[in-house]
Amino acid sequence: MSKRLNRQVQLAARPEGLPKPADWAITEEPVSEPGPEEVLVKVRYISVDPAMRGWMNDRPSYVPVLGLGAVMRALTVGEVVASNSGAHRVGDWVAGLDGVQDYAISDGSQYMKIDTGLAPPQTYLNTLGIAGLTAYCGLLEVGQFQAGNTALVSGAAGSVGAHVGQIAKLKGGRAVGIAGGPEKCAYLIDELGFDAAIDYKKENLYKSLGRACPDGIDLFFDNVGGDTLNTGLAFINVGARVVICGAISQYNETRSFQGPSNYIRLLMRSSRMEGFIYFDFRDKWPGMLKDLATWRAEGKIVCREDITEGPVDIFPDTLLRLFSGENFGKLMIKLPE
Amino acid sequence: MSKRLNRQVQLAARPEGLPKPADWAITEEPVSEPGPEEVLVKVRYISVDPAMRGWMNDRPSYVPVLGLGAVMRALTVGEVVASNSGAHRVGDWVAGLDGVQDYAISDGSQYMKIDTGLAPPQTYLNTLGIAGLTAYCGLLEVGQFQAGNTALVSGAAGSVGAHVGQIAKLKGGRAVGIAGGPEKCAYLIDELGFDAAIDYKKENLYKSLGRACPDGIDLFFDNVGGDTLNTGLAFINVGARVVICGAISQYNETRSFQGPSNYIRLLMRSSRMEGFIYFDFRDKWPGMLKDLATWRAEGKIVCREDITEGPVDIFPDTLLRLFSGENFGKLMIKLPE
Repeated sequence: MSKRLNRQVQLAARPEGLPKPADWAITEEPVSEPGPEEVLVKVRYISVDPAMRGWMNDRPSYVPVLGLGAVMRALTVGEVVASNSGAHRVGDWVAGLDGVQDYAISDGSQYMKIDTGLAPPQTYLNTLGIAGLTAYCGLLEVGQFQAGNTALVSGAAGSVGAHVGQIAKLKGGRAVGIAGGPEKCAYLIDELGFDAAIDYKKENLYKSLGRACPDGIDLFFDNVGGDTLNTGLAFINVGARVVICGAISQYNETRSFQGPSNYIRLLMRSSRMEGFIYFDFRDKWPGMLKDLATWRAEGKIVCREDITEGPVDIFPDTLLRLFSGENFGKLMIKLPE
Repeated sequence: MSKRLNRQVQLAARPEGLPKPADWAITEEPVSEPGPEEVLVKVRYISVDPAMRGWMNDRPSYVPVLGLGAVMRALTVGEVVASNSGAHRVGDWVAGLDGVQDYAISDGSQYMKIDTGLAPPQTYLNTLGIAGLTAYCGLLEVGQFQAGNTALVSGAAGSVGAHVGQIAKLKGGRAVGIAGGPEKCAYLIDELGFDAAIDYKKENLYKSLGRACPDGIDLFFDNVGGDTLNTGLAFINVGARVVICGAISQYNETRSFQGPSNYIRLLMRSSRMEGFIYFDFRDKWPGMLKDLATWRAEGKIVCREDITEGPVDIFPDTLLRLFSGENFGKLMIKLPE
């Protein structure tokens, strides 16, 4: 026990624009023993998500502001390696919010136990975790997607977007995806079953949307913001739902966010734009996870994993891959055992 | 009959920015006799509304594009002066969409009969018409306003805003209004019962909103758009509803609409922004009108009338008063008998 060392990636400074190396500090300390009723978890997978950029800001949000010097917040999957809690046994796998570090000690109350017999552990950061649940909540709860609807999905090759398109198809709708580059567009069509894919790096989005959505858009699931959001709004139908899940094009803007001038289409089309996080629906997660596990088992939902193996030190560079669009599939770090 | 003349204000050109005199044509023609099953209505009051600016554009909207040479679309109240229809008798008062002209002939199917014993005829363009219904639909149906909520209302001294604030108070909430100038702000507090009024011409909106809404905003009823919308968004609570009723600050922009960069607060606050028109809820109008008539009779709802008397020729100048903010109360034209 005493030989265990915990490496931690801490927030050292508030970034302006893209996070720089100097915005991080990496520390190493011996791991303590868990106290009474506490558990010690070895983190095995770290989820790398666009929302992390927002968590680095000193701005009120849906989560408390992260203090300077605190371990970087991150969704994780890990294994219980020591336990003084009746609720957790050594060898249990748990999903939680342990942050970018090797080990975490807590009372274990925040953990969700996961069944690694049902799916590999990292699936609980993907289809059976943030990606699948975010897609499910946004498309079906917030967006009230119906059979026959057309869904437009930006960031469609990302882990959330990939699930949105597949669930839209499962529910009897059309799915049109926006992604960057021919490889991602082929992935949308060939592996995920989208009806159409638009390569924003090559195509004129306005023209391509007109072609791909001849009957307009009933639901726009937006992960991107900026011009993408604004252009999509030009095509919404009466009663459309514009679901705001993210704005990855804007997170590193050092000036102001770009506002969508076409928001006025909400008025002209009696439509709504609505933001959410999947935690808003945590009471409904059990039923959602059951659906997601069934669809996954039936092969109706797939999602690529983009897993980088290494120590926590690789986190800063891995995070940047999200904003350059280099990642392909659900981005995670797999820590050494 | 044959001596009756119909003066009509027609759309002669699509305006760029504020409508100019050359964008209008005024014609005069003898009034025909109504045909079989038709009625002839003498228009008595013409409603002058911000939405009219949008109706002049060649852009798809919730109403058909108005052709060049067509009579300008307008909500009206009038009196049946000749009828070959069993449904309408001479002397009946009706509310309709007869446009900026003295007389209209139709089959009468679009008219709503009004009771001038219950309220003066022009009330059916105000509390018992577009203004009251728009406020009711936006606040209670779209915005789901609840007792204890704080409503922020922009364009609060306008006819819709005035009703929104008073209904919010009736329903047990707080009402904070934004208006231009000390006279309008005094009207909000002294006559309409708003809890606070912000003079956007004199005050820093961000600072004043912080003071007037210490517990944030649960419902933002926006008639204005632009900086007003964007600044209000900075104060929304979790689960807030931003009801988009209009964007009067932007209708005459010759460049692009200003988009609200703070739309991202919808994500950070799990909130929604939703547009509507009161026609969306026409199935519910009878019950709404009953409520509005009751509140009016009980003195719980008042709204100033800003009535200009004259021939239809005064319409172009009267419309401009809306955009300069000169009007005070529900703007209407009363035609000569």
